[in-house]
Formats: sequence, structure tokens, C-alpha cells
Amino acid sequence: MNYKLTIAYDGTRYQGWQKNKNAAQTIQTKVEEILSKYTGETVALIASGRTDKGVHASGQVANMHLKRPLNLDVFKGEIHTYLPDDVVIKEIIKVDDRFHARFQAVSKTYDYTLYKGYDNKRPVFDRKYVHIQEDFIHIEKMKEATKLFIGEHDFKGFSSDKTKKSTVRTIESIDIRETDNTVTISVTGNGFLYNMVRIIVGTLIEIGLGSRTSESISQVLKSGIRDQAGFTAEAQGLSLVSVTYK
Amino acid sequence: MNYKLTIAYDGTRYQGWQKNKNAAQTIQTKVEEILSKYTGETVALIASGRTDKGVHASGQVANMHLKRPLNLDVFKGEIHTYLPDDVVIKEIIKVDDRFHARFQAVSKTYDYTLYKGYDNKRPVFDRKYVHIQEDFIHIEKMKEATKLFIGEHDFKGFSSDKTKKSTVRTIESIDIRETDNTVTISVTGNGFLYNMVRIIVGTLIEIGLGSRTSESISQVLKSGIRDQAGFTAEAQGLSLVSVTYK
Repeated sequence: MNYKLTIAYDGTRYQGWQKNKNAAQTIQTKVEEILSKYTGETVALIASGRTDKGVHASGQVANMHLKRPLNLDVFKGEIHTYLPDDVVIKEIIKVDDRFHARFQAVSKTYDYTLYKGYDNKRPVFDRKYVHIQEDFIHIEKMKEATKLFIGEHDFKGFSSDKTKKSTVRTIESIDIRETDNTVTISVTGNGFLYNMVRIIVGTLIEIGLGSRTSESISQVLKSGIRDQAGFTAEAQGLSLVSVTYK
Repeated sequence: MNYKLTIAYDGTRYQGWQKNKNAAQTIQTKVEEILSKYTGETVALIASGRTDKGVHASGQVANMHLKRPLNLDVFKGEIHTYLPDDVVIKEIIKVDDRFHARFQAVSKTYDYTLYKGYDNKRPVFDRKYVHIQEDFIHIEKMKEATKLFIGEHDFKGFSSDKTKKSTVRTIESIDIRETDNTVTISVTGNGFLYNMVRIIVGTLIEIGLGSRTSESISQVLKSGIRDQAGFTAEAQGLSLVSVTYK
């Protein structure tokens, strides 16, 4: 039996999604432990991908294989009483045995939220889910610049990856939405390198501030040199919103 | 010099607004301590009213008298570095010496937010600011019932007040707004008794559930018997949104 789970979490107090050798508190460890206890089997979760320390998710997807079938109605009614209040299993469905949450992910969407901290304005209720942007940023400039990221590119310069694997990825869209207090940068692509969304966001912020030109994006895409791109925006503004499958 | 402050806070880790003899952590104590340190004077805050343990505010109003004038631009730029991240001074202005945040308050608006926890749905990011409503409530029934609260009434039955003072108050409006995940009950009135908003909300929830008739509202307004009204909705769903002055 193979089950697909959609999971939301507040990443604030975790060392990211992925289990590690230091036995530190990760979301994967926490949820696997609870699901193992609940099912009486040793549950291994296959997620769409890791999220870093402090990053949130409103729509992480994972799958798990079980030997014994679950009564899904009973599961949905009970599981939240086992989970901590910063992790929610939003959905669980039975899927084909061949479903694999990582390999079959077609695209992912991340939202990065900036709080307009102009004139020393500060957030209260959403303070753990935003990056405070103290200096004024020109949204129109940023919107214009997003176009340069769209399509298939070698994103090596927009990543902290030390891998020798391919760093070519495709970005489908980058949307920027504004409310009175926030600016949300929504990035959809077929896959993301380590820190890629956060460096794209950092680069866009520098463009919005006027301390960097849009042309620099094309230059970094060509050079592949990390130091030429913008800063890595802090983890807490980032959230994995959704994962798309065929 | 008299200053009017608009203050927002996440009430989760506080014993309410008001200073108490047990030296427990209250918002007033915390903010007075910081303002005293900042100004070098002994600051006493006069708030529009207390908020209970666990209740939030996005627009509490208080005033303070100082002997020496503040440079407000400098104050705004610095004060957030002294405050904890769950308390924000949103605004400070110089006001007439006679301004009194409690006595001159004309009306107050409180929002109470329910999370639609139907089918075991659970919130993640706003989990500390909502009451989880597990069973389906009929919003239209609740909207209809709100009319009975409007106007001047003796709200003794909708309060935990043991006072012998007048329990007559005027409710100007009760609006109910719905989003995909939440129901917000917004109550505006010239003043509120102890637990009054939370008991009105509890009563409206029972009407929405169908376990109580709207007529019972008129009965409780007449009888003044607390036990005939609904349950006291939990503190964490409540937030003081704004205070109006002439």
C-alpha cells in the first residue's frame, strides 16, 4: 500500500525537513516517528524534496509504503492528536504503488514573503513567516527583472550547491503579489538547487533597492559565479506551497 | 507631555495586559519596563482597558505622561530594538494633556476568529490566533442572531463580572466575515464587561451549531443569568482591533 500525504509545517523550531545523522529535530524524523507509532510499522517518508532549517511548508508532499492498509477516515480523525501543533497532515490518499513523491514531481511552487518594514513598521502575528524588508523596494523593477529568470538556464550562480551534477533547471513563472503590508514572490519551477529560491529572492531585493541592475541576472546565468548574485534571503520567509505531479 | 501609543501584541505568552501583584508577566509590565528604561522616567501606561490572559491586540491604545519630551522620529527608529518580537508599538503621537486612553474611549472593536476545523482540518501558521471550530456552524443563522445583541442592553448574563456597577452597555455592530478557512466575528461597542465578547461568541457558536435558539439571547438579556448564555469561547481567538476616540 502506497499513501500520498500533503503536509504543512511551521519550520521555526526544526532543523529542516530531512533526517540527519546528528539526530537533531527534523520534521521528517518527527513525522516518521509518529506514523511508525500509529501504524506499528517502520515508516519511511519519501518527500518531494528537503526544505532547509527554518523553512516552512503549506503543501509539502511525501509518500510512504505500508504493509497493512490504513482506514483513512479513522486516520484523518486521529492523527492530529498525535502530531505537534506545528505540523499538520492536510491530506492522505491511497496512490499507485509506483508513485514516488520525489522522482515524479513535475514542478514545485515556493512563496517568499517580505514584510514592508518601511518607517520601522514591524509585524506581530506573522513575524515568524516573513523577512522584514526595512528599506523601500521598487516592486515594478523587480517584476520586470523576474522575466530574465524564466525558462531553462544553468542556475549554478544562483545556488550554494557544491555538486558536480547538472545545475540546469527550468523556472516556469515568478509572480510578485503585493498587499498593504507584504510582498510575496512566488516561484514555480521543475526543480531547485540548494538555496536557489532564496538567492533569486535576494537578487530581486537588491534590484528593487536599486543596488543592482537587472542585467546582472543575465551575467550570473552566464558566469555561474555565486558571488556575483545577490544575498541569500533568510529561511523564515520561505514556504513550500505546492508540488505538482502528472 | 502626553503621548498616545497604538500597540499590537501576540498575547500567547502573557498573563494579559494588566499589571498584577503576582509580578507575573503581563504586557503592561513589560512595556512600562522598556519605556522606563528608554526614557529614564517611571512610565505608567493608561490603556483603553485590560485584555485577558492569552488575548491578542492589533490596536490596543494607551497613553503616558512624560516630564521630558521625546524625539518621536528617533523613538520610532529605536524602540523596536528594545521590545520583544511579540509586542510592537505601531504608532506614537503627542496628544493633549487631557487625553485619557480609558475614559475617553468612545468605542472598541474586537475580532474573534474561528478556524473551520471541519473534517479534522487544522491550522498551522495562525494556530495561536484562532479557535478551532470542529463541528459545522451555520453562518447565516449566526448572522441573523447578531441583530438581537445590537443596541443598549443589560449584558449581565453575558459576562463573568461580579461587579455591582452598571452592566448596561451598547453594542453598535456585530459583523461576521467568512474566508475559505475562517469565520471572523467582529464586535463593536461602547464598552465590554468581563468575558462579554467571548460569551457572546460562545452563544453565537451554539446558535450556529443548532444547539440553541436565537430567542435565548432575548431571554438572557432579560434574566441576566450567566448560566443561561453560551460557553466562554477561549481567549486565543480574540483580538482587540481598534479603539475609537472623539
